[in-house]
Amino acid sequence: MLTLYHSPMSRSSRIVTLIEELGAADTVRIVEVGIARQDGTGYRDPANPHPEGKVPALEHDGALILESIAIAQHLCELFPDAGLLPAAATPQRGKCLEWLAWYAGVIEPVVVAKFLNIDDPRFASNFRDWDTAMTRLTGALDGRDWLVGDHYTVADLIVHSLFNWMPDMLPDHHGTKAWHERIAARPAAQNTMARDRAAMEVE
Amino acid sequence: MLTLYHSPMSRSSRIVTLIEELGAADTVRIVEVGIARQDGTGYRDPANPHPEGKVPALEHDGALILESIAIAQHLCELFPDAGLLPAAATPQRGKCLEWLAWYAGVIEPVVVAKFLNIDDPRFASNFRDWDTAMTRLTGALDGRDWLVGDHYTVADLIVHSLFNWMPDMLPDHHGTKAWHERIAARPAAQNTMARDRAAMEVE
Ligand SMILES: N[C@@H](CCC(=O)N[C@@H](CS)C(=O)NCC(=O)O)C(=O)O
Ligand SMILES: N[C@@H](CCC(=O)N[C@@H](CS)C(=O)NCC(=O)O)C(=O)O
Repeated sequence: MLTLYHSPMSRSSRIVTLIEELGAADTVRIVEVGIARQDGTGYRDPANPHPEGKVPALEHDGALILESIAIAQHLCELFPDAGLLPAAATPQRGKCLEWLAWYAGVIEPVVVAKFLNIDDPRFASNFRDWDTAMTRLTGALDGRDWLVGDHYTVADLIVHSLFNWMPDMLPDHHGTKAWHERIAARPAAQNTMARDRAAMEVE
Repeated sequence: MLTLYHSPMSRSSRIVTLIEELGAADTVRIVEVGIARQDGTGYRDPANPHPEGKVPALEHDGALILESIAIAQHLCELFPDAGLLPAAATPQRGKCLEWLAWYAGVIEPVVVAKFLNIDDPRFASNFRDWDTAMTRLTGALDGRDWLVGDHYTVADLIVHSLFNWMPDMLPDHHGTKAWHERIAARPAAQNTMARDRAAMEVE
């Protein structure tokens, strides 16, 4: 049994998109919960099993699995036929895991630091900064359509999710902008956006 | 061909330990490089292929793989017989991936914020704080020997690596302290420490 706890327009939306991309929409139950939002709206929902009230959270046969990149990779391994994660032990697998780790361990702290104007050289010595991160991203997308190999993978979905919410932060780089358009136009991404919008209107 | 770029007493030391735990010491070549250290010593080493001069970096048949948790997981998949990563698509696999993601995406930013005295509620709303993180860890080790299942996994190695360098930060919790002793006493951990010490003395 697989259950995703999801809140519209949040970090769990990309997991909803992934479930559709994996062809797993009939297998994974999606339960909508509330969260406390950064703008002060919303509330910590007692129906959400996440110990800190966050989303996403995935229940798998009674085990509660947290953290977006872990949930994303785990779902790809549960539904391998979709081909969103390269085969284990190949160099491409390693690259795909790198992008997931980089998103969680570098992009998220760097973006938060940028918004909070944290400008400490010791912070930068650990995580570097936005420009360094964008150099890595635009370098990878220079003359290439996807982050790993020659088709869409979970690396594209997760790394791109940032620009889903903050398209203004897209670097001024042709290949990266084209990558953004390509990902945002995918039916699963559009469907999640439409469903999330409808859910927010009902609330 | 597998080559690890390593600098003694750094974030790559845990990967050296992992290679020994995996029984892969004869297969993975380890190349020692210099890094710019937080105390101002050291230098960015031109022999290090990491685009930002960091370690660890893993070369796998010409592909350069970055980020500790990606490298760690990839190596576990290359040497599956060691059993340091539960089988794909099992709930235990999901939990193990969660701990890796949590280490990179939560523990690292929270520790850096703690040391830099970043005390912004918006930072905390994203990453929470040290006490919340330690609640998750001590909860998992309450009455249990290992983070996932009933034996040592890559989750223990990576999450514990923090306390390798900062044992003073160990929470005052019996199960967590016993876990720390158990991991620090492992031969592979001791060997890495001895080799790193010797390398630092030569420098
Ligand atoms: N490290 C977690 C972060 C999850 C997270 O912060 N989710 C936000 C939604 S965008 C949330 O649930 N916030 C509610 C809260 O912090 O109470 C992950 O990557 O899954
Ligand atoms: N996100 C990277 C961080 C790696 C990292 O910061 N490594 C440090 C060593 S502890 C480093 O190489 N520092 C040298 C520098 O920043 O130039 C990972 O998890 O592997």
